[in-house]
Amino acid sequence: MAYIKLLNEELPGIVGLLNYRPETAKPLTLLAETLLRGPSTLTSGEREIIAASVSWWNNCHFCHTSHAAAAVAHYQCDLGLIDEIKKGLPNTEVSDKLRALLHVAHQVQRSGREVTEADIAQARELGATDQEIHDTVLIAAAFCMFNRYVDGLGTWAPQSREAYKEMGERMAYVGYGKS
Amino acid sequence: MAYIKLLNEELPGIVGLLNYRPETAKPLTLLAETLLRGPSTLTSGEREIIAASVSWWNNCHFCHTSHAAAAVAHYQCDLGLIDEIKKGLPNTEVSDKLRALLHVAHQVQRSGREVTEADIAQARELGATDQEIHDTVLIAAAFCMFNRYVDGLGTWAPQSREAYKEMGERMAYVGYGKS
Repeated sequence: MAYIKLLNEELPGIVGLLNYRPETAKPLTLLAETLLRGPSTLTSGEREIIAASVSWWNNCHFCHTSHAAAAVAHYQCDLGLIDEIKKGLPNTEVSDKLRALLHVAHQVQRSGREVTEADIAQARELGATDQEIHDTVLIAAAFCMFNRYVDGLGTWAPQSREAYKEMGERMAYVGYGKS
Repeated sequence: MAYIKLLNEELPGIVGLLNYRPETAKPLTLLAETLLRGPSTLTSGEREIIAASVSWWNNCHFCHTSHAAAAVAHYQCDLGLIDEIKKGLPNTEVSDKLRALLHVAHQVQRSGREVTEADIAQARELGATDQEIHDTVLIAAAFCMFNRYVDGLGTWAPQSREAYKEMGERMAYVGYGKS
């Protein structure tokens, strides 16, 4: 049970919080929709992998599993990708550019001050554009917010991967802040 | 100079980033406006102190100094408050409730998982309502995003406190995302 009395205690993770405070839900869902599903040269699958990875590094079970499930929906692969993201994608074919952006995201997760010019230069050398670098930093930063919001208020989360399959499909195909 | 090529390199901190990517600027400024200036039983001055404190703990000079300057504008006090916030407000009269909420915010800054039921119970005992606890956690979480965004992209920031006076007044009296 969350640390505060929500309007509907059955809603898990951030869902119960968005329902509790519609004034802040509006910018939060618009931010997620823009960052993860808005126009970009990074695919939504790649952006959900960044979001899920940051959430895993922040030890946020709800955000990690739901965004990894959204990546599963985008790639139309099996739920094994959820655990594969936790390990750093050793057995998944992803571009060198995405691996370099994931490194930048990991630095951001530690602290904004950890990101060096060399980290950015490496991503650029492997094909990342300025806007892709911008969006990667902001996705990583935004999940440092979402993760803290979800866990800082002690929300509950389903444990099994399977419980997130449908949620991931909704996040991927319907979007954020939409019913 | 920032790590990416901004449209206007003279704009400091987050200002240059908001100008670079208007699609993400919209939800980001709406979030700041709602959290720091929207209807709340916490004053805007108290909320700016929370924002400035989290930014200081994250070592983000631009966000700390600008939001502390906004608190100065709300309280109509002198710029000494900017350094006083860094030290944990030893010489400033603030309520026990705000001190308890600042402790919750500090836990959030470390990690969402650091916040305990005891931290929340203490804030509640000192008069914090559920919505004040919710908003404090989200303000702290949001500044973990803003700070990483500003520093993760290597933006420049004026050094002196005095350079932030006018900016703080604009943030306090005009608002976020408004010109």
